[in-house]
Amino acid sequence: MPTKANLTIVKIGGQLLEDQAQLQLLLEKFSALPGAKILVHGGGRKASQIAEQLQVKVQLVEGRRITDKAMLEVATMVYAGWYSKNLVSQLQGLGCNALGLCGADLNCIEARKRPVGKIDYGWVGDIHQINTEALLPLLQANICPVFSAITHDGQQQLLNTNADTIAASLAMALTPFYHIDLRFCFELPGVLAQAEPQAAVLAQLDSSTYQKLKAMGIISGGMIPKLDNAFAALRQKVKSIAIGNPSTLFNQQSTQLCL
Amino acid sequence: MPTKANLTIVKIGGQLLEDQAQLQLLLEKFSALPGAKILVHGGGRKASQIAEQLQVKVQLVEGRRITDKAMLEVATMVYAGWYSKNLVSQLQGLGCNALGLCGADLNCIEARKRPVGKIDYGWVGDIHQINTEALLPLLQANICPVFSAITHDGQQQLLNTNADTIAASLAMALTPFYHIDLRFCFELPGVLAQAEPQAAVLAQLDSSTYQKLKAMGIISGGMIPKLDNAFAALRQKVKSIAIGNPSTLFNQQSTQLCL
Repeated sequence: MPTKANLTIVKIGGQLLEDQAQLQLLLEKFSALPGAKILVHGGGRKASQIAEQLQVKVQLVEGRRITDKAMLEVATMVYAGWYSKNLVSQLQGLGCNALGLCGADLNCIEARKRPVGKIDYGWVGDIHQINTEALLPLLQANICPVFSAITHDGQQQLLNTNADTIAASLAMALTPFYHIDLRFCFELPGVLAQAEPQAAVLAQLDSSTYQKLKAMGIISGGMIPKLDNAFAALRQKVKSIAIGNPSTLFNQQSTQLCL
Repeated sequence: MPTKANLTIVKIGGQLLEDQAQLQLLLEKFSALPGAKILVHGGGRKASQIAEQLQVKVQLVEGRRITDKAMLEVATMVYAGWYSKNLVSQLQGLGCNALGLCGADLNCIEARKRPVGKIDYGWVGDIHQINTEALLPLLQANICPVFSAITHDGQQQLLNTNADTIAASLAMALTPFYHIDLRFCFELPGVLAQAEPQAAVLAQLDSSTYQKLKAMGIISGGMIPKLDNAFAALRQKVKSIAIGNPSTLFNQQSTQLCL
Protein backbone atom coordinates (compact mmCIF):
# COMPACT_ATOMS: atom_id res chain seq x y z
CA MET A 1 0.00 0.00 0.00
CA PRO A 2 1.53 3.36 -0.97
CA THR A 3 2.22 5.94 1.73
CA LYS A 4 -0.58 8.45 2.05
CA ALA A 5 0.11 11.98 0.79
CA ASN A 6 -0.43 15.05 2.97
CA LEU A 7 -3.50 17.23 2.83
CA THR A 8 -3.79 20.52 4.71
CA ILE A 9 -7.28 21.82 5.46
CA VAL A 10 -7.39 25.40 6.70
CA LYS A 11 -10.58 26.91 8.04
CA ILE A 12 -10.69 30.71 8.19
CA GLY A 13 -13.29 32.74 9.94
CA GLY A 14 -14.03 35.41 12.48
CA GLN A 15 -12.60 38.90 12.09
CA LEU A 16 -9.82 37.55 9.88
CA LEU A 17 -12.04 37.64 6.79
CA GLU A 18 -12.53 41.37 7.22
CA ASP A 19 -8.86 42.22 7.82
CA GLN A 20 -7.36 42.49 4.31
CA ALA A 21 -3.74 42.58 5.51
CA GLN A 22 -4.06 39.52 7.77
CA LEU A 23 -6.11 37.70 5.13
CA GLN A 24 -3.51 38.37 2.44
CA LEU A 25 -0.80 37.07 4.82
CA LEU A 26 -2.81 33.91 5.43
CA LEU A 27 -3.48 33.37 1.72
CA GLU A 28 0.21 33.83 0.88
CA LYS A 29 1.22 31.24 3.48
CA PHE A 30 -1.59 28.92 2.42
CA SER A 31 -0.66 29.17 -1.28
CA ALA A 32 2.95 28.32 -0.46
CA LEU A 33 2.04 25.10 1.39
CA PRO A 34 3.29 22.00 -0.39
CA GLY A 35 0.86 19.19 -1.25
CA ALA A 36 -2.90 19.02 -1.48
CA LYS A 37 -4.93 21.69 0.30
CA ILE A 38 -8.49 22.80 0.99
CA LEU A 39 -9.67 26.15 2.31
CA VAL A 40 -12.96 26.43 4.24
CA HIS A 41 -14.38 29.81 5.16
CA GLY A 42 -17.16 31.35 7.17
CA GLY A 43 -18.38 34.91 6.83
CA GLY A 44 -21.00 35.25 9.54
CA ARG A 45 -20.14 38.80 10.56
CA LYS A 46 -20.66 40.18 7.09
CA ALA A 47 -23.81 38.06 6.65
CA SER A 48 -25.24 39.67 9.80
CA GLN A 49 -24.26 43.13 8.57
CA ILE A 50 -25.83 42.65 5.10
CA ALA A 51 -28.92 41.10 6.73
CA GLU A 52 -29.36 44.16 8.93
CA GLN A 53 -29.04 46.47 5.92
CA LEU A 54 -31.69 44.41 4.11
CA GLN A 55 -33.87 44.42 7.24
CA VAL A 56 -33.59 40.66 7.62
CA LYS A 57 -33.74 39.59 11.26
CA VAL A 58 -30.45 38.24 12.67
CA GLN A 59 -31.03 35.46 15.21
CA LEU A 60 -28.19 33.58 16.88
CA VAL A 61 -28.57 30.92 19.59
CA GLU A 62 -25.25 30.07 21.32
CA GLY A 63 -23.32 31.13 18.22
CA ARG A 64 -25.58 29.08 15.91
CA ARG A 65 -27.60 30.98 13.34
CA ILE A 66 -31.33 30.57 12.90
CA THR A 67 -31.83 30.67 9.14
CA ASP A 68 -35.18 31.66 7.74
CA LYS A 69 -35.71 31.94 3.97
CA ALA A 70 -34.47 35.53 3.80
CA MET A 71 -31.40 34.72 5.91
CA LEU A 72 -30.56 31.73 3.69
CA GLU A 73 -30.55 34.08 0.72
CA VAL A 74 -28.19 36.47 2.53
CA ALA A 75 -25.91 33.64 3.72
CA THR A 76 -25.73 32.17 0.21
CA MET A 77 -24.95 35.58 -1.30
CA VAL A 78 -22.27 36.45 1.26
CA TYR A 79 -20.58 33.06 1.76
CA ALA A 80 -20.90 31.38 -1.66
CA GLY A 81 -20.86 34.66 -3.59
CA TRP A 82 -18.77 37.47 -2.16
CA TYR A 83 -16.31 35.63 0.09
CA SER A 84 -15.96 32.51 -2.04
CA LYS A 85 -15.19 34.30 -5.28
CA ASN A 86 -12.93 36.89 -3.67
CA LEU A 87 -10.90 34.18 -1.96
CA VAL A 88 -10.69 32.23 -5.22
CA SER A 89 -9.59 35.31 -7.15
CA GLN A 90 -7.00 36.17 -4.50
CA LEU A 91 -5.63 32.61 -4.48
CA GLN A 92 -5.52 32.47 -8.29
CA GLY A 93 -3.49 35.69 -8.22
CA LEU A 94 -1.04 33.88 -5.91
CA GLY A 95 -0.68 30.95 -8.31
CA CYS A 96 -2.97 28.58 -6.40
CA ASN A 97 -5.53 26.88 -8.66
CA ALA A 98 -8.58 27.54 -6.49
CA LEU A 99 -12.16 26.46 -7.14
CA GLY A 100 -15.01 27.84 -5.04
CA LEU A 101 -17.48 25.19 -3.98
CA CYS A 102 -20.59 24.89 -1.88
CA GLY A 103 -21.97 21.50 -0.94
CA ALA A 104 -24.37 21.53 -3.91
CA ASP A 105 -21.54 21.81 -6.46
CA LEU A 106 -20.75 18.30 -7.74
CA ASN A 107 -23.00 17.18 -4.87
CA CYS A 108 -19.87 17.45 -2.69
CA ILE A 109 -21.64 17.74 0.64
CA GLU A 110 -25.14 16.45 1.16
CA ALA A 111 -26.90 17.58 4.31
CA ARG A 112 -30.26 17.07 5.98
CA LYS A 113 -32.41 19.89 7.30
CA ARG A 114 -32.01 19.93 11.07
CA PRO A 115 -35.13 18.47 12.69
CA VAL A 116 -37.16 20.99 14.67
CA GLY A 117 -36.50 20.41 18.39
CA LYS A 118 -36.58 22.92 21.23
CA ILE A 119 -35.29 25.38 18.66
CA ASP A 120 -36.32 25.59 15.01
CA TYR A 121 -33.08 26.48 13.23
CA GLY A 122 -34.87 26.83 9.88
CA TRP A 123 -32.84 26.14 6.73
CA VAL A 124 -29.83 24.76 8.58
CA GLY A 125 -28.28 21.52 7.40
CA ASP A 126 -26.46 18.81 9.33
CA ILE A 127 -23.94 16.99 7.17
CA HIS A 128 -25.17 13.65 5.91
CA GLN A 129 -22.41 12.70 3.50
CA ILE A 130 -19.16 14.03 2.06
CA ASN A 131 -18.85 12.86 -1.54
CA THR A 132 -15.16 11.93 -1.61
CA GLU A 133 -15.51 10.55 -5.15
CA ALA A 134 -16.16 14.10 -6.35
CA LEU A 135 -13.36 15.63 -4.27
CA LEU A 136 -10.47 13.22 -4.82
CA PRO A 137 -10.10 13.88 -8.59
CA LEU A 138 -9.94 17.62 -7.87
CA LEU A 139 -7.18 17.17 -5.27
CA GLN A 140 -5.31 14.80 -7.59
CA ALA A 141 -5.50 17.44 -10.35
CA ASN A 142 -3.82 19.99 -8.01
CA ILE A 143 -7.04 21.94 -7.69
CA CYS A 144 -7.60 23.67 -4.35
CA PRO A 145 -11.27 23.52 -3.29
CA VAL A 146 -12.48 26.60 -1.39
CA PHE A 147 -15.58 25.64 0.59
CA SER A 148 -18.25 28.05 1.70
CA ALA A 149 -20.63 27.13 4.51
CA ILE A 150 -23.59 26.30 2.26
CA THR A 151 -24.72 22.73 1.57
CA HIS A 152 -27.85 21.18 0.02
CA ASP A 153 -30.20 18.29 0.61
CA GLY A 154 -30.02 16.77 -2.89
CA GLN A 155 -33.69 17.73 -3.35
CA GLN A 156 -33.11 21.26 -4.71
CA GLN A 157 -32.86 22.90 -1.30
CA LEU A 158 -29.79 24.86 -0.17
CA LEU A 159 -28.95 24.73 3.54
CA ASN A 160 -26.77 26.80 5.86
CA THR A 161 -24.09 24.69 7.59
CA ASN A 162 -21.48 25.69 10.16
CA ALA A 163 -18.06 26.20 8.54
CA ASP A 164 -16.10 24.64 11.45
CA THR A 165 -18.24 21.53 11.08
CA ILE A 166 -17.62 21.44 7.33
CA ALA A 167 -13.84 21.65 7.89
CA ALA A 168 -13.87 18.89 10.52
CA SER A 169 -16.20 16.69 8.43
CA LEU A 170 -14.04 17.06 5.32
CA ALA A 171 -11.00 16.10 7.41
CA MET A 172 -12.73 13.02 8.83
CA ALA A 173 -14.05 11.89 5.42
CA LEU A 174 -10.66 12.25 3.77
CA THR A 175 -8.50 10.48 6.41
CA PRO A 176 -8.67 7.15 4.53
CA PHE A 177 -6.90 8.87 1.61
CA TYR A 178 -4.58 11.48 3.17
CA HIS A 179 -2.57 12.33 6.26
CA ILE A 180 -4.53 15.37 7.33
CA ASP A 181 -3.36 18.50 8.98
CA LEU A 182 -6.40 20.56 10.04
CA ARG A 183 -5.87 24.18 11.04
CA PHE A 184 -8.46 26.58 12.38
CA CYS A 185 -7.37 30.11 11.64
CA PHE A 186 -8.92 33.21 13.20
CA GLU A 187 -7.79 36.44 14.84
CA LEU A 188 -6.38 35.01 18.12
CA PRO A 189 -2.91 33.44 18.31
CA GLY A 190 -4.38 30.23 19.76
CA VAL A 191 -6.41 28.93 22.70
CA LEU A 192 -5.69 31.24 25.62
CA ALA A 193 -4.90 29.97 29.12
CA GLN A 194 -6.93 32.77 30.69
CA ALA A 195 -10.02 34.70 29.67
CA GLU A 196 -7.99 37.92 29.08
CA PRO A 197 -7.07 38.76 25.48
CA GLN A 198 -3.40 39.21 26.50
CA ALA A 199 -3.17 35.75 28.13
CA ALA A 200 -0.53 33.25 27.06
CA VAL A 201 -1.32 30.79 24.29
CA LEU A 202 -1.56 27.14 25.30
CA ALA A 203 1.03 25.23 23.26
CA GLN A 204 -1.04 22.10 23.69
CA LEU A 205 -4.60 21.40 24.68
CA ASP A 206 -5.85 17.93 25.54
CA SER A 207 -9.50 17.02 25.80
CA SER A 208 -9.62 16.78 29.61
CA THR A 209 -8.00 20.22 30.00
CA TYR A 210 -10.50 21.51 27.44
CA GLN A 211 -13.37 20.22 29.57
CA LYS A 212 -11.90 21.91 32.66
CA LEU A 213 -11.33 25.25 30.92
CA LYS A 214 -14.85 25.09 29.52
CA ALA A 215 -16.31 24.42 32.99
CA MET A 216 -14.30 27.38 34.36
CA GLY A 217 -15.68 29.64 31.62
CA ILE A 218 -12.20 30.37 30.22
CA ILE A 219 -13.18 28.74 26.96
CA SER A 220 -16.62 29.96 25.91
CA GLY A 221 -18.85 31.17 23.06
CA GLY A 222 -17.88 30.35 19.51
CA MET A 223 -14.75 28.49 20.67
CA ILE A 224 -16.90 25.66 22.05
CA PRO A 225 -18.40 24.34 18.79
CA LYS A 226 -15.02 24.90 17.11
CA LEU A 227 -13.20 22.77 19.70
CA ASP A 228 -15.97 20.16 19.89
CA ASN A 229 -15.64 19.72 16.13
CA ALA A 230 -11.86 19.64 16.36
CA PHE A 231 -11.70 16.99 19.10
CA ALA A 232 -14.23 14.86 17.23
CA ALA A 233 -11.96 15.01 14.17
CA LEU A 234 -8.92 14.12 16.26
CA ARG A 235 -10.68 11.03 17.59
CA GLN A 236 -11.40 10.07 13.95
CA LYS A 237 -7.67 9.87 13.15
CA VAL A 238 -7.14 13.32 11.68
CA LYS A 239 -3.36 13.49 12.13
CA SER A 240 -2.82 16.96 13.47
CA ILE A 241 -5.10 19.83 14.51
CA ALA A 242 -4.00 23.35 15.42
CA ILE A 243 -5.78 26.61 16.25
CA GLY A 244 -4.25 30.06 15.78
CA ASN A 245 -3.87 33.12 13.57
CA PRO A 246 -1.95 33.64 10.31
CA SER A 247 1.25 34.48 12.24
CA THR A 248 1.24 31.59 14.72
CA LEU A 249 -0.34 28.79 12.67
CA PHE A 250 2.51 28.37 10.24
CA ASN A 251 5.30 28.77 12.85
CA GLN A 252 4.31 26.06 15.34
CA GLN A 253 3.30 28.81 17.81
CA SER A 254 -0.42 28.09 17.76
CA THR A 255 -2.31 25.67 20.00
CA GLN A 256 -1.91 22.01 19.06
CA LEU A 257 -4.76 19.71 20.10
CA CYS A 258 -4.12 16.26 21.53
CA LEU A 259 -6.35 13.58 23.00
CA MET B 1 -9.70 12.66 -36.74
CA PRO B 2 -12.66 11.56 -34.59
CA THR B 3 -16.04 13.22 -35.13
CA LYS B 4 -16.63 16.06 -32.72
CA ALA B 5 -19.18 15.49 -29.97
CA ASN B 6 -22.09 17.86 -29.36
CA LEU B 7 -22.10 20.57 -26.71
CA THR B 8 -25.19 22.61 -25.87
CA ILE B 9 -24.64 26.01 -24.23
CA VAL B 10 -27.81 27.58 -22.83
CA LYS B 11 -27.82 31.15 -21.58
CA ILE B 12 -30.70 32.10 -19.31
CA GLY B 13 -31.59 35.58 -18.26
CA GLY B 14 -34.23 38.25 -18.08
CA GLN B 15 -37.47 37.65 -16.20
CA LEU B 16 -37.02 33.89 -16.59
CA LEU B 17 -34.73 33.70 -13.55
CA GLU B 18 -37.49 35.08 -11.36
CA ASP B 19 -40.27 32.84 -12.67
CA GLN B 20 -39.90 29.60 -10.68
CA ALA B 21 -42.32 27.60 -12.85
CA GLN B 22 -40.69 28.61 -16.16
CA LEU B 23 -37.23 28.17 -14.67
CA GLN B 24 -38.03 24.68 -13.43
CA LEU B 25 -39.38 23.81 -16.92
CA LEU B 26 -36.17 25.06 -18.49
CA LEU B 27 -33.97 23.18 -16.03
CA GLU B 28 -35.90 19.94 -16.60
CA LYS B 29 -35.46 20.24 -20.37
CA PHE B 30 -31.84 21.26 -19.98
CA SER B 31 -31.06 18.33 -17.64
CA ALA B 32 -32.61 15.90 -20.14
CA LEU B 33 -30.41 17.08 -23.04
CA PRO B 34 -28.00 14.40 -24.21
CA GLY B 35 -24.28 15.14 -24.39
CA ALA B 36 -22.10 17.83 -22.89
CA LYS B 37 -23.76 21.01 -21.69
CA ILE B 38 -23.04 24.38 -20.09
CA LEU B 39 -25.48 26.78 -18.47
CA VAL B 40 -24.73 30.52 -18.36
CA HIS B 41 -26.93 32.87 -16.35
CA GLY B 42 -27.44 36.54 -15.71
CA GLY B 43 -29.37 37.99 -12.80
CA GLY B 44 -29.32 41.73 -13.43
CA ARG B 45 -32.88 42.43 -12.30
CA LYS B 46 -32.30 40.97 -8.85
CA ALA B 47 -28.89 42.65 -8.64
CA SER B 48 -30.58 46.01 -9.25
CA GLN B 49 -33.24 45.22 -6.67
CA ILE B 50 -30.73 44.20 -3.96
CA ALA B 51 -28.58 47.22 -4.83
CA GLU B 52 -31.52 49.54 -4.29
CA GLN B 53 -32.29 47.91 -0.94
CA LEU B 54 -28.64 48.39 0.08
CA GLN B 55 -28.73 51.98 -1.21
CA VAL B 56 -26.16 51.22 -3.89
CA LYS B 57 -26.66 53.38 -6.99
CA VAL B 58 -27.90 51.46 -10.06
CA GLN B 59 -26.46 52.89 -13.29
CA LEU B 60 -27.17 51.36 -16.70
CA VAL B 61 -26.02 52.78 -20.04
CA GLU B 62 -27.75 51.13 -23.05
CA GLY B 63 -28.35 47.99 -21.00
CA ARG B 64 -24.73 47.85 -19.83
CA ARG B 65 -24.12 48.18 -16.11
CA ILE B 66 -21.70 50.67 -14.61
CA THR B 67 -20.06 48.77 -11.78
CA ASP B 68 -18.51 50.66 -8.90
CA LYS B 69 -17.00 48.81 -5.94
CA ALA B 70 -20.31 48.49 -4.08
CA MET B 71 -22.12 47.29 -7.22
CA LEU B 72 -19.41 44.68 -7.87
CA GLU B 73 -20.05 43.32 -4.39
CA VAL B 74 -23.80 43.14 -5.09
CA ALA B 75 -23.29 41.54 -8.52
CA THR B 76 -20.90 38.94 -7.10
CA MET B 77 -23.31 38.12 -4.27
CA VAL B 78 -26.37 37.84 -6.52
CA TYR B 79 -24.86 36.17 -9.61
CA ALA B 80 -22.08 33.96 -8.17
CA GLY B 81 -23.85 33.41 -4.84
CA TRP B 82 -27.63 33.28 -4.90
CA TYR B 83 -28.39 32.40 -8.54
CA SER B 84 -25.37 30.19 -9.14
CA LYS B 85 -25.87 27.99 -6.10
CA ASN B 86 -29.64 27.77 -6.49
CA LEU B 87 -29.30 26.73 -10.12
CA VAL B 88 -26.65 24.16 -9.18
CA SER B 89 -28.81 22.77 -6.38
CA GLN B 90 -31.85 22.60 -8.68
CA LEU B 91 -29.86 20.84 -11.42
CA GLN B 92 -28.33 18.39 -8.92
CA GLY B 93 -31.86 17.55 -7.78
CA LEU B 94 -32.64 16.73 -11.42
CA GLY B 95 -29.67 14.38 -11.72
CA CYS B 96 -27.42 16.81 -13.60
CA ASN B 97 -23.92 17.02 -12.11
CA ALA B 98 -23.69 20.81 -12.00
CA LEU B 99 -20.75 22.92 -10.83
CA GLY B 100 -21.14 26.67 -10.31
CA LEU B 101 -18.25 28.65 -11.71
CA CYS B 102 -17.22 32.24 -12.12
CA GLY B 103 -14.29 33.18 -14.33
CA ALA B 104 -11.92 33.19 -11.33
CA ASP B 105 -12.61 29.53 -10.51
CA LEU B 106 -9.86 27.41 -12.10
CA ASN B 107 -8.95 30.67 -13.89
CA CYS B 108 -11.62 29.68 -16.43
CA ILE B 109 -12.21 33.14 -17.85
CA GLU B 110 -9.62 35.85 -17.66
CA ALA B 111 -10.81 39.35 -18.41
CA ARG B 112 -9.30 42.84 -18.58
CA LYS B 113 -10.84 45.86 -16.90
CA ARG B 114 -12.55 47.87 -19.63
CA PRO B 115 -10.43 50.96 -20.43
CA VAL B 116 -12.08 54.24 -19.47
CA GLY B 117 -13.44 55.89 -22.63
CA LYS B 118 -16.40 58.22 -23.00
CA ILE B 119 -17.94 56.16 -20.22
CA ASP B 120 -16.15 54.74 -17.17
CA TYR B 121 -17.81 51.37 -16.67
CA GLY B 122 -15.85 50.75 -13.45
CA TRP B 123 -15.15 47.13 -12.51
CA VAL B 124 -16.38 45.69 -15.80
CA GLY B 125 -14.26 43.13 -17.58
CA ASP B 126 -13.90 42.36 -21.28
CA ILE B 127 -12.99 38.75 -21.90
CA HIS B 128 -9.31 38.23 -22.61
CA GLN B 129 -9.09 34.45 -22.62
CA ILE B 130 -11.22 31.36 -22.06
CA ASN B 131 -9.10 28.67 -20.44
CA THR B 132 -10.29 25.63 -22.42
CA GLU B 133 -7.67 23.44 -20.69
CA ALA B 134 -9.57 23.92 -17.43
CA LEU B 135 -12.99 23.38 -19.01
CA LEU B 136 -12.45 20.34 -21.23
CA PRO B 137 -11.69 17.88 -18.38
CA LEU B 138 -14.89 18.96 -16.64
CA LEU B 139 -17.00 18.36 -19.75
CA GLN B 140 -15.26 15.04 -20.36
CA ALA B 141 -16.11 14.01 -16.78
CA ASN B 142 -19.82 14.69 -17.44
CA ILE B 143 -19.76 17.76 -15.23
CA CYS B 144 -22.08 20.58 -16.24
CA PRO B 145 -20.48 24.01 -15.63
CA VAL B 146 -22.93 26.72 -14.57
CA PHE B 147 -21.35 30.11 -15.30
CA SER B 148 -22.23 33.32 -13.54
CA ALA B 149 -21.39 36.66 -15.11
CA ILE B 150 -18.35 37.38 -12.94
CA THR B 151 -14.78 37.07 -14.22
CA HIS B 152 -11.38 38.17 -12.89
CA ASP B 153 -8.18 39.74 -14.18
CA GLY B 154 -5.76 37.13 -12.78
CA GLN B 155 -4.38 39.84 -10.42
CA GLN B 156 -6.86 39.28 -7.55
CA GLN B 157 -9.57 41.54 -8.98
CA LEU B 158 -13.08 40.29 -9.75
CA LEU B 159 -14.86 41.90 -12.71
CA ASN B 160 -18.47 42.11 -13.86
CA THR B 161 -18.93 40.70 -17.39
CA ASN B 162 -22.05 40.50 -19.56
CA ALA B 163 -23.58 37.00 -19.47
CA ASP B 164 -24.55 36.98 -23.18
CA THR B 165 -20.93 37.75 -24.01
CA ILE B 166 -19.73 34.94 -21.73
CA ALA B 167 -22.05 32.46 -23.45
CA ALA B 168 -20.98 33.53 -26.94
CA SER B 169 -17.28 33.56 -25.97
CA LEU B 170 -17.47 30.08 -24.45
CA ALA B 171 -19.13 28.86 -27.65
CA MET B 172 -16.45 30.41 -29.85
CA ALA B 173 -13.58 29.10 -27.68
CA LEU B 174 -14.97 25.57 -27.64
CA THR B 175 -15.77 25.19 -31.39
CA PRO B 176 -12.41 23.48 -32.09
CA PHE B 177 -13.51 20.69 -29.71
CA TYR B 178 -17.30 20.42 -30.08
CA HIS B 179 -20.20 20.97 -32.46
CA ILE B 180 -21.91 23.74 -30.55
CA ASP B 181 -25.55 24.51 -30.22
CA LEU B 182 -25.94 27.89 -28.49
CA ARG B 183 -29.37 28.85 -27.16
CA PHE B 184 -30.36 32.14 -25.60
CA CYS B 185 -33.32 31.58 -23.34
CA PHE B 186 -35.48 34.36 -21.88
CA GLU B 187 -39.18 35.17 -21.47
CA LEU B 188 -40.07 35.81 -25.14
CA PRO B 189 -40.77 32.95 -27.59
CA GLY B 190 -38.14 34.30 -30.01
CA VAL B 191 -37.24 37.37 -32.02
CA LEU B 192 -40.50 39.09 -32.91
CA ALA B 193 -41.32 40.36 -36.39
CA GLN B 194 -43.02 43.46 -34.98
CA ALA B 195 -42.49 45.60 -31.90
CA GLU B 196 -45.77 44.38 -30.29
CA PRO B 197 -45.47 41.63 -27.65
CA GLN B 198 -48.09 39.53 -29.49
CA ALA B 199 -46.23 39.63 -32.82
CA ALA B 200 -45.26 36.45 -34.64
CA VAL B 201 -41.90 34.86 -33.93
CA LEU B 202 -39.40 34.91 -36.78
CA ALA B 203 -38.50 31.30 -37.54
CA GLN B 204 -35.21 32.48 -38.97
CA LEU B 205 -33.21 35.66 -38.72
CA ASP B 206 -30.25 36.42 -40.96
CA SER B 207 -27.78 39.18 -40.30
CA SER B 208 -29.02 41.54 -43.02
CA THR B 209 -32.63 41.25 -41.81
CA TYR B 210 -31.30 41.86 -38.28
CA GLN B 211 -29.67 45.11 -39.44
CA LYS B 212 -32.94 46.21 -41.11
CA LEU B 213 -35.09 45.41 -38.04
CA LYS B 214 -32.61 47.20 -35.83
CA ALA B 215 -32.69 50.30 -38.10
CA MET B 216 -36.51 50.22 -37.99
CA GLY B 217 -36.45 50.04 -34.17
CA ILE B 218 -38.28 46.68 -34.10
CA ILE B 219 -35.24 45.10 -32.47
CA SER B 220 -33.98 47.34 -29.68
CA GLY B 221 -32.65 47.56 -26.11
CA GLY B 222 -31.12 44.48 -24.54
CA MET B 223 -31.78 42.40 -27.69
CA ILE B 224 -29.06 44.31 -29.56
CA PRO B 225 -25.99 43.21 -27.55
CA LYS B 226 -27.53 39.69 -27.35
CA LEU B 227 -27.86 39.46 -31.16
CA ASP B 228 -24.51 41.13 -31.81
CA ASN B 229 -22.88 38.49 -29.62
CA ALA B 230 -24.88 35.74 -31.28
CA PHE B 231 -24.02 36.75 -34.87
CA ALA B 232 -20.35 37.09 -33.90
CA ALA B 233 -20.45 33.51 -32.58
CA LEU B 234 -22.18 32.29 -35.76
CA ARG B 235 -19.43 33.81 -37.89
CA GLN B 236 -16.90 31.95 -35.70
CA LYS B 237 -18.35 28.57 -36.73
CA VAL B 238 -20.69 27.97 -33.79
CA LYS B 239 -22.94 25.40 -35.46
CA SER B 240 -26.40 26.54 -34.46
CA ILE B 241 -27.80 29.50 -32.52
CA ALA B 242 -31.41 29.94 -31.39
CA ILE B 243 -33.28 32.48 -29.27
CA GLY B 244 -36.51 31.73 -27.41
CA ASN B 245 -38.18 30.72 -24.16
CA PRO B 246 -38.31 27.34 -22.34
CA SER B 247 -41.36 26.27 -24.39
CA THR B 248 -40.12 27.20 -27.87
CA LEU B 249 -36.37 26.58 -27.57
CA PHE B 250 -36.59 22.81 -27.27
CA ASN B 251 -39.34 22.38 -29.90
CA GLN B 252 -37.74 24.13 -32.90
CA GLN B 253 -40.28 26.97 -32.49
CA SER B 254 -37.79 29.61 -31.46
CA THR B 255 -35.84 31.94 -33.77
CA GLN B 256 -32.88 30.31 -35.51
CA LEU B 257 -30.08 32.62 -36.55
CA CYS B 258 -28.33 32.32 -39.90
CA LEU B 259 -25.69 34.36 -41.70
